[in-house]
Order: sequence, then structure tokens, then C-alpha cells
Amino acid sequence: MRQQTLLLPTLREAPAEAEAMSHQLMIRGGYIRQVAAGIYTYLPLGLRVLKKLERIVRHEMDRAGGQELLMPAMQPAELWQQSGRYSEYGPELIRFKDRHDREFALGPTHEEVVTTLIANEINSYRKLPLTLYQIQTKFRDERRPRFGLLRGREFLMKDAYSFDMDWEGLDRTYWRMHEAYSRIFTECGLHYKAVVADAGTIGGDGGTHEFMALAEIGEDTIVSCSLCSYAANLEKAEGRAVEGQEINSVDRSASPSTSKLEKFHTPDIKTIEQLVKALVEPASQFIKTLLFMTAEGSPVVVLVRGDHEVNEIKVKNHLGCGELQLADAETTLRITGTPAGFVGPIGLPAGIPILVDQQVSVLSGAVAGANEQDYHLRHVQPGIDFSLERTGDFRNVTEGEPCSCCEGSLVFNRGIEVGHIFKLGTKYSEKLGAKFLDSNGRNQTMIMGCYGIGISRLLSAVVEQHHSEAGLLWPQSIAPYQVHIIPVSSKSEEQMKLAEAIYEQLLQQRIEVLLDDRNERIGVKLKDSDFIGCPVRIVIGKEAGNEFVEYKERNDAEPRLISVEEAIKLVSPLKQ
Amino acid sequence: MRQQTLLLPTLREAPAEAEAMSHQLMIRGGYIRQVAAGIYTYLPLGLRVLKKLERIVRHEMDRAGGQELLMPAMQPAELWQQSGRYSEYGPELIRFKDRHDREFALGPTHEEVVTTLIANEINSYRKLPLTLYQIQTKFRDERRPRFGLLRGREFLMKDAYSFDMDWEGLDRTYWRMHEAYSRIFTECGLHYKAVVADAGTIGGDGGTHEFMALAEIGEDTIVSCSLCSYAANLEKAEGRAVEGQEINSVDRSASPSTSKLEKFHTPDIKTIEQLVKALVEPASQFIKTLLFMTAEGSPVVVLVRGDHEVNEIKVKNHLGCGELQLADAETTLRITGTPAGFVGPIGLPAGIPILVDQQVSVLSGAVAGANEQDYHLRHVQPGIDFSLERTGDFRNVTEGEPCSCCEGSLVFNRGIEVGHIFKLGTKYSEKLGAKFLDSNGRNQTMIMGCYGIGISRLLSAVVEQHHSEAGLLWPQSIAPYQVHIIPVSSKSEEQMKLAEAIYEQLLQQRIEVLLDDRNERIGVKLKDSDFIGCPVRIVIGKEAGNEFVEYKERNDAEPRLISVEEAIKLVSPLKQ
Repeated sequence: MRQQTLLLPTLREAPAEAEAMSHQLMIRGGYIRQVAAGIYTYLPLGLRVLKKLERIVRHEMDRAGGQELLMPAMQPAELWQQSGRYSEYGPELIRFKDRHDREFALGPTHEEVVTTLIANEINSYRKLPLTLYQIQTKFRDERRPRFGLLRGREFLMKDAYSFDMDWEGLDRTYWRMHEAYSRIFTECGLHYKAVVADAGTIGGDGGTHEFMALAEIGEDTIVSCSLCSYAANLEKAEGRAVEGQEINSVDRSASPSTSKLEKFHTPDIKTIEQLVKALVEPASQFIKTLLFMTAEGSPVVVLVRGDHEVNEIKVKNHLGCGELQLADAETTLRITGTPAGFVGPIGLPAGIPILVDQQVSVLSGAVAGANEQDYHLRHVQPGIDFSLERTGDFRNVTEGEPCSCCEGSLVFNRGIEVGHIFKLGTKYSEKLGAKFLDSNGRNQTMIMGCYGIGISRLLSAVVEQHHSEAGLLWPQSIAPYQVHIIPVSSKSEEQMKLAEAIYEQLLQQRIEVLLDDRNERIGVKLKDSDFIGCPVRIVIGKEAGNEFVEYKERNDAEPRLISVEEAIKLVSPLKQ
Repeated sequence: MRQQTLLLPTLREAPAEAEAMSHQLMIRGGYIRQVAAGIYTYLPLGLRVLKKLERIVRHEMDRAGGQELLMPAMQPAELWQQSGRYSEYGPELIRFKDRHDREFALGPTHEEVVTTLIANEINSYRKLPLTLYQIQTKFRDERRPRFGLLRGREFLMKDAYSFDMDWEGLDRTYWRMHEAYSRIFTECGLHYKAVVADAGTIGGDGGTHEFMALAEIGEDTIVSCSLCSYAANLEKAEGRAVEGQEINSVDRSASPSTSKLEKFHTPDIKTIEQLVKALVEPASQFIKTLLFMTAEGSPVVVLVRGDHEVNEIKVKNHLGCGELQLADAETTLRITGTPAGFVGPIGLPAGIPILVDQQVSVLSGAVAGANEQDYHLRHVQPGIDFSLERTGDFRNVTEGEPCSCCEGSLVFNRGIEVGHIFKLGTKYSEKLGAKFLDSNGRNQTMIMGCYGIGISRLLSAVVEQHHSEAGLLWPQSIAPYQVHIIPVSSKSEEQMKLAEAIYEQLLQQRIEVLLDDRNERIGVKLKDSDFIGCPVRIVIGKEAGNEFVEYKERNDAEPRLISVEEAIKLVSPLKQ
């Protein structure tokens, strides 16, 4: 492609609103432009990269036995009402009425449509298992679209759905997809981790993995082990289990710190930080008492160590409830009779369940709120002063603590979710009637899985990992062009002639080449070339007469002067 | 691909709602399924064909110098307000508000988005001309979606937009697109005509062509000449011009039929048919007087011959108005003082403009309404009895009448609009600020064109032209698979072994093959194969042991028994 006629508007300055590096670089490199918040146009170069990602994804999905189809973005509301998600999904689902006043949703995902299709078309075990996928534009009205393509409102996604006869079949399909995803991300040059994620209330007893691209900008925390292969997102990561005998093993009379419970005055000391300062004891000796309200308005108290954070997902899973809200000051006072900051596990009104994190259960001589304004208790003995009946893992793990599987310790990283695989089970097939006759003629419900890759998000994630100060550094597999040819002066007939000759020769070898044939200063051309980030750059300057060029691969610090012949030999493996 | 595992649900019966043959066949062949009125899922086979059409279109657009990009479906309402189309477009534009109450439209077309992009990014003549295109899902809330993919509400479209420095440049781009379109439709195996269409009030002084696929189901009438290359849609087709001297040349005193105007009693005779019957004169001797109301509420009368139809587009273009409505009985009475059916050109209230079709202007001794209930006039002499000041072409041409260009006569055909190219001029660039500095440093407005192909509609149009009673007959260029291999009995090891061997060999030659490996009766397999419609069918039966197969190309009446070797040689040109 000749740059003169290409729509490739590079920018010297990053737009003020672009926080993420990938967002800045893709705008500056002329890859994308914003149309509205979270809504983008892919310029020719951006679309080329997107299409390459599509091709990689399509290839691996086909290889894993997937069949591609294309479902519509407009989905009748009735389907969503049948699955129960029309009300569940909330304001992220874009809804509208057609001219005949019928309600529609713009698909953020296609479980309803695909399950209805299969319910209508497949009724025998002979046609199972079946995995369908599509590469399609999705819509999600994010409350706060940000980071360019990382969190957009209109985005390209690969979504796949599998239908199996039984759970063993789903298991096979699930791990086949896991493999396919691993190959896809590796091929795209992405550093990623597949982490155990939380199935929440969606998947029932199914499993789920998230594929996380490692990146500082990522909104998720990935927990992994320094030694073994354990990896999970923070919501799901488990702390090492506390042995049974450790709990409840403390005997007040036997322990030096087991003096009697003692109430002491702590005027206006409401936070752990203030307590640590006032008592000169580590935060790990304090019990944090948090009051939550369920969607039904029932209170529940959760105890974690002063240096730990409650993991609401774990609490929700334990309670089997959908929504959970931290009680505000007013609610706290109404429910406990004590102002926030002084609530503790001892002497709470009867009937409030108390969930005790394992790490609290093994404390001895701890400090907790006294359920009285301006007072705390010390020498608190879990198991003696309050019940440990509902003890479990209710906290976020912390960096550096022991791995739950081995002798390693936990490491934290930030990550961007680029893929998600999910065992759905019968959640949709039950509601939307996807049944089949098994080989014995019995009616069975299909066992489903779903598997998503955010293709436009993947694009951004690759850029987050592959750039320098100067601009993009595309992995070869998805670069918009493999080679960028730049004559130093467009006025030099000798240079232009050689540039054109190399350009034509590479095109004939089916190598994707960009030729900077613009009448610009070499400084401008090189700066633009840095922004664009092709894997190989060939600059044609003073040595053109001798058939020598400056050759630079993306990881080279400096270009080297080599013969045209050698340059062509070096790039020939880049053939598409 | 092995049919056993493929989602390819053929149907014995066409669904009741499918009127168009293409709709029926694509549902029965397992190509598409309806999700809601005018909204479809493309099953794996349907998507394969769609992708092939995409590839053909992309290839020709690139060859014509187009650059592909991808714009969003979600478009901010402000852009449409700026162009003035937000109100103009009517209920076909799908609108909704996001969670922050901002208005959006789902793009039926992208003039606003692309023009705004170019207004922001291009400011110099050095970057012009520029043609951008995308292949993207479009939304249009049709009042009456019908005929499957022919008139859908969500559909795939290739839309291109060109930006030129001047009208001469646009002309070159326009004809380059015209050529590209011709190549695309030819490559798809489509019988089509490029017809002159009406630019209406959209394109100003620009030209426009429609590419029409010939098909009985088509909703448009195409007019073409039996001799020359003249072709136009009915809205635009011109009748042969009446020479100047013919008009007004009639002298009442010199003509035998020029007796005095005579009023005669025609009780309850309101229609041309009734007049023809009552007077035993041909319809061509009558003057049909039609009253229209403009959007501003002004009346206008149009006169055409009794056997002709008014062409409202021509009337609108003459008046330069947007909307025109045939007056109802009440309005007619109110405006003319005469009940509908008896209105005529003579003695109308003053101030109502009378547009006279050319063919009326040359009548002599005609019959017209008397502007009095139950009376008509005979011996009416145009030019004497009423003014011919506003004479022009205001009617639809009729089949068989002389061509306006040569000695041929006009032929009518039904057609499906599959493509449309359009000179937009400055309509959008003016309003959305797409300006540039020319080589003299002067600020100029870009001259635009737009060029659409309905890809999903094209798919249906091809099917309308390529099918038999039994099912589809795909042109090779877009067939989902080139070869269909069918063993007569899946229980015959010999047949299955040969089928598998041929299947593998063709796959290795990069020929797309479908293998019917299902355990079904041969009758079922052949019927399904007819529905699916691959260009070549190879049936492996009793002669498998001798390495002979039954070979049938889509236009062959009967299969022929040939050797495997010969069969493979015959299909090898089908390599992708």
C-alpha cells in the first residue's frame, strides 16, 4: 500500500481523554477514531489488525470443531424474558421498541438466540455434540466506557456455544476450548494467564476460567503462585485452608494473652488505622466487623482480620444470594444499636448471622468493637466469646501469603480479561427447551457451555504489551503490514526507484508492504513509522546507489546497513 | 465438511410465511432461519455463501482503489440532526436513548459518520481523491419486512463513500464504481441491468444508477429498449419526446373532430373504465384529471391520458417539492367544488396549476370531466380549451411504446435493486464541514459520491435466478461447497471407503467438499442434496468396486457413470 493515498492520520499529541497507553497509541498511530464515548471507527490500519485477529480466532475455532454461523444483533425481548435475563441484565442491555411497539434488545451475548435455534432444529443425540460460534458486533451500554477499545459500548466479539449430551461431554468440549484459547492468545503474541474465576450465580455448579492478559492498566487482579501453576482472579483465589484443629483449639486459661475480656475507652476511634495508631498493635490483631444487607433486607455480619478485605463474592456464594450491600451508617445504627466503627461480634442483637473468616477464627487476644459508642474490647477469644459455627473463606487473599496448593507464595498482577470460558450446564437449555432424545429414546436436556473472546479488547491488550515510548511494536502475526519501506527523500530519483523496486518485489512475494511515498521530511516519516509499528523497517538513503539499505527489526536498537538482496532474504519468511 | 456433524437442517415443507422462492429455498436448504420478522440467523451454509459474496465485493472494491474501514452501528443523533436527516428519515430509522439519556440511531447508512471523519482528518487536496468502504450490518425498520433477506430489518451491506476535489473527479470515481459493480454482479452469476434512476431530492444535480437483478418477485419495474442500451427504472424512464410543432398545432376549425365543446350527461360514471364502456371510445381519447396536494397544502392538477398513469416522482421533480398526496374525495370537493370523477381541466377554480402530460397536449377531440356532477365534456381541444403552458413528461411509460432514443420499443421487466451508485455532490460535505485546501490554497468543499450493495439481498437475488423445482443451483463462485459426495449406502464399507478417499483427495486439492456421511436412505440424501445445490454431485453406488461413480453437474439432466480418476479431473478447476 502506498502511504500517500492511505487514510492514516497520525497525531503528534495524544488526545486528552485517552488514559490507557493502548488507546493513546492507537489514536496517534491512525488506527482508530472515537465517534462517541465507547464507540469507535476502525480506520484502514486498525481494521487490518482486527481482521488478522479474526482470522486467527476463526482458524482455531474451526480446528476445535466449531461451526461458524451469524446471529442477528436485534433480539426480540420475549427471548430474554423467557430466560429471565430481561430484568436481570439491567441498564447495560440496550433496549428499544420497533415501529410496531414491539420490544427488542441489542445483543450483548447470544445464549437466548442460539439456544432457541438449537431447541427448534436439533432433537437427536446423533447431532450432538455441537459447537457453534460467530464473530459479531456486540452492544453493551457500559456505565463508564473507558480505555478506548478496552471497555467500549460497541465491540467485536467471538462468542461460541456448545451443546453436549452430558457433563462428561461438556468437560471434553470445555477443555478443547481451553486449548484453542491458549493457542489463539499465544499466536497473537499475548502474555496471558488462564485463571480460575468465580461462576457466581450464573453457572450453577459449572466451572469457569478467565484468560487474562497481563497489563498494568488491567482492572482485574490476578493471583498466582510463585512456584506452582495455581492462578485465579482475586474474587476466586483461595487462602491456604486453616487446619481443623487450629480452630477452636485455643483455651483461654492456657494462653498468656487470655486475660478476661476488657472494655476500654476509644473516643472517636472508628477505623483500624486509628486503632493501630492508638494501641500500637498490628492490624492483624484486630477484628473488622462489617454489616451487609441482602437484597431481601436481611442483615449479615462478616468478620475479617484488620489487615484483610472482605470478598463479597465469597460471602454471596456462601449465602447463595444475588445482591449484597455494605450497610450505611444509618442502617448500621438501626440494626445494631451501635454507631458504625464500634460494632463487634460480642453482644450483637440476636438473629444476625455472623460469618467468621478462617483467619479470624485462629486469632487469640484480639481487639474488636464493643457494640457501644467510643468503646472497644480487648482479649477477645474467637470460639469462646463468639461462635465459630459459620467459619469459612470470606476474604481476599493478600500478596505474599502462602499458596493454597504448595509451598510457594502468592503473587499479584493486574490483568485484562480477553477471554472467558464457562460451563453453563442447563441454565438456558432448561428454560428455552433445548432437549434431545438420547440413544435409549429418553428425553434429556442439553448441557451447554459458552466461550467468549473480546476481539477488539484483545487488540488493545496486545498493544498494552507491545509498544515502546515511540509507538507500537506489532507482533508479526497481526501487524497491519510486515514491512515499512521509507525512502529518505522523495525527491531523490535514485532512492525512489530503489524503494519502488523493493516494494514491487516484496508484493510479488505476497509480503504486506507499506511504502512511504509521501513528500515529507525524513524526520516526519520516521516518527510516523514509529507510531505505526511495522515489524520491519527498511530505510533507503544515501547508499541506494550501492543497493544498500538500513534495515531494522522492531526489537533492534539501531538499524544496520545491509544489501538489498540480504534485506529481501530476511523478510521473505514474513509471507502471508 | 462431514454432514453428520454439520448444522444443516433441511426441511421438506416450506414455511407458510415464505412467499418468495429464494426465501423458501434458503429455509428449506438449511441456509437461514428467522429470529423475528425481517431478522435472520445465517446457518453455517448461509454464512459460507455470504462470506463468498463479501470476498468478491471486497476484491473488486480494493481493485477500484477503495480503502476498507469499519464504522459503528451506534450513531449519535447529533450527527443526523446536523445533516437534517434525523427528522427526514422517518420511522425506518431505529432510535434509542442510552443510559445517560443521550439519543442514538442504529445506522441504516453512514454518510454522517464518514463525512464527519473526513472533515476532521483530511484538509488537503494531496489526500484526495479518497474512496472508503465498509462491509457492515445495517438496520432499517421496514414497515413491512418481507421476502426473507430481500427486505429485512437487519442486513449486511457494503457501503462506500468517495471524496473528490471536483465534479470531474467524482465522475471518474463514479464510473470506476460502475465498472466494479458490473464485475461484482457478473462474478456472482447474476443477470442484471444497470438502469438510470431518479436522484429525487437527495442528490441534487448528481446522477444515479441502480443495479437491478432481473426477477419476477422484484418490486421494481425496469424499462429497457428492445434495440438500444437504454434502461431506466419506471420512475425515471422517459417517453419519446413530443415534437414542438405537434403541440398546439391543432386548429379547431380545420379538424373534423373539432366540433364545439359539448357537455353530456354521465350519471354515476366516474372512472375511465366506465367511460370507455359507455362511450365505446378507447381510453386513450380520455383525459384523466388528478388532483394532488403538496406538503404545504397547495393543490396541483395533473392531466394524463386515460390509458396512462401519473408518475409522481416526475411531478415532484417538476415542482421541486418533497411530498405529494393524491387528494381524497372530500379534499377534491372542497378544492374544486366538484365531486371526484367529474373534475376536468376546463373551468377549474383560478390559481390551481395544471400540469399537462405531453401525450395529452397532442390529443384532439378528447373527453374530460366537466367540473359538474354527472357531466363530462367531449370535443375537448388541449391548447384551446385549456392552457398548455406547463406541459411536460408526467406519466409512466407503457410497455411497447417507442424508445426515447431509437427506433426500438420499450420492454418491461421486474427487478430487485441489489446496488445503487449515487452522486451526492456537496449535500453532506457542506453541512458537515468536509472542506479542503486546493493546490492554490483556496478552501473548497469536497464532492461526494456514495455506493451501496445489499450483500444479503444479493444473496437472495442470486437464488431467485438460480434454482430449479428441486432446490438451489449455486453458481460456482459462491457455492457453499463445490462438490457434494454421496455414498448410496452408509452401511457399504466399499462405498464409504471410496467416498472417504475421494473426499480426502479433493480436500488436499483445496476443493470445498461436503461428504454426506449420515446413516440415511439414499432418497433422503439426494433430496437434501437437491435442496443444498452444490455445483457438482458425485454419487458412489454399486460401481464403487470398479472405481466408477455417478457424476452430475448442476445443469446436467442426468448423471453419467465415469471413473473416479475422470471425476477428480473434472472437478479440479474448482479449486479455491
